[in-house]
Amino acid sequence: MTTLAIDIGGTKLEVAVVDDLGNVHERRRCPTPQEGSGEDLFDSVTGLIGELRAHSFQRVGVGCGGPMTRQGDTVSPLNIPAWREFPLRERLREHLGRRVHVDNDAKAFALAEGWLGAARGIHDYLGLVVSTGVGAGIVSRGRLLDGASGNAGHLGHMFVADGTESWPGHPAGLLESEASGTAIALRTGAPAAGASSSVVARTGTLVGRAVASAVNLLDLRLAVVAGSVALGFGEPFFRSAQDEIDRLCTLDFAAGARIVPAGLGDAAPLIGAAAVALRAEGHDIGIA
Amino acid sequence: MTTLAIDIGGTKLEVAVVDDLGNVHERRRCPTPQEGSGEDLFDSVTGLIGELRAHSFQRVGVGCGGPMTRQGDTVSPLNIPAWREFPLRERLREHLGRRVHVDNDAKAFALAEGWLGAARGIHDYLGLVVSTGVGAGIVSRGRLLDGASGNAGHLGHMFVADGTESWPGHPAGLLESEASGTAIALRTGAPAAGASSSVVARTGTLVGRAVASAVNLLDLRLAVVAGSVALGFGEPFFRSAQDEIDRLCTLDFAAGARIVPAGLGDAAPLIGAAAVALRAEGHDIGIA
Repeated sequence: MTTLAIDIGGTKLEVAVVDDLGNVHERRRCPTPQEGSGEDLFDSVTGLIGELRAHSFQRVGVGCGGPMTRQGDTVSPLNIPAWREFPLRERLREHLGRRVHVDNDAKAFALAEGWLGAARGIHDYLGLVVSTGVGAGIVSRGRLLDGASGNAGHLGHMFVADGTESWPGHPAGLLESEASGTAIALRTGAPAAGASSSVVARTGTLVGRAVASAVNLLDLRLAVVAGSVALGFGEPFFRSAQDEIDRLCTLDFAAGARIVPAGLGDAAPLIGAAAVALRAEGHDIGIA
Repeated sequence: MTTLAIDIGGTKLEVAVVDDLGNVHERRRCPTPQEGSGEDLFDSVTGLIGELRAHSFQRVGVGCGGPMTRQGDTVSPLNIPAWREFPLRERLREHLGRRVHVDNDAKAFALAEGWLGAARGIHDYLGLVVSTGVGAGIVSRGRLLDGASGNAGHLGHMFVADGTESWPGHPAGLLESEASGTAIALRTGAPAAGASSSVVARTGTLVGRAVASAVNLLDLRLAVVAGSVALGFGEPFFRSAQDEIDRLCTLDFAAGARIVPAGLGDAAPLIGAAAVALRAEGHDIGIA
């Protein structure tokens, strides 16, 4: 049995066929069109699917930027302005004639890392993406948390500092307002990739602070991290984050919580998209 | 069917017989002994139980200060120094000859408010106690979160301010280090009950900040609040907290989250202790 996996991000679109062991058999990708209508974007997605040689998949799984309504009936990705309340699930079902399951891309990432990556065998962890924005999926006692409307995991909107700088939709003091790729570019006037060592350390500290709050609140053990900002910053970022977690996680149950790089590399979004579908259909991927 | 409900706090011990509709039929309370051994404290608990006329209860439920090991096999309440790794569950089972279920008192409070109080019918909420310390129980999609070791809910250890004052076990910047009854007394040199309006407002803001982080992270709808500090401060506390929640919860799914006083008054700890037992035995109290 195989799943058509679709990853829809603000920078790129990617599709693949993923088998039930998580092996990725075909991959096609293209840049996300930055202009044009929502229909144009949908055409890019279906065009990419059309390039696949294998068409025998049984189901479709999608990871997409949030927010979205429950089960992805409509999606309004913050960094894809062309889609506002776009009926992604129904449109894909019409086009493909298969069952379609849609979830937030950060939740999909958390599923992937728990199924086959750095959180395998761990029942209480965060899967965290630090990139243009900051998103997460939370697994508690082996269950992915959905929340009231399916939007659980917005770690980027946790309070981390007595900040004073806000921008539209981003009140001062929240992690995304202080330490996302967008925030770094706004603050320093240059892309995060060129950040100074002090900006790298501060970003690590603030991400570690949000992770520590989540660890203390939810009795977690691990944060697995991906995303171009975090992985680009590398070891100094992880060291600063771990130091802040160690400072703030002092209760017996929380002490020793770790933050580590993701295990699945750039296949994680596709494996995660497949995991969204497998989870929705009740298959055992180690996380309910 | 009835449950023997036991609430064990740093200030008072209380027991009652609670029926399966949540009616509290007998209550006995005494101050928690502040001196003496762990055995003396256990004798106080069993002495209180001995004062009850009804002895026909089928099960025993206990709410107790944390932290504790999973299922309350041993308890080490922060504010009851006489008990460190005290085997509460087994000792009560030996003494009473009934099934005994133990959980954190803040988790018990959250169950009570969801079963019969201000969170009834809500599936995603926090039950929050702001008193000497700050503790919470989290309900997500109708399930009480336990966490890896049963200690989920330590909202008091979320980051809320760039603080500089720490005390043993309480790193600077955490809610309990800044805005618990203990922190207020340390900062102002007087009990929280006599706090100035600016201290009341600041406490509300910082509690609101932690609640906002939790709402954004977990896609919650409501925080129900009890505890002598919060309820003693009253309306100005709740107004400051709500203002901060409104400031920080700007995403569509989180906007409109509310913070309200608890609905069950001083019966909540006993109803919660009964709910701990009913939940553990699979009875329907609206929360799994």
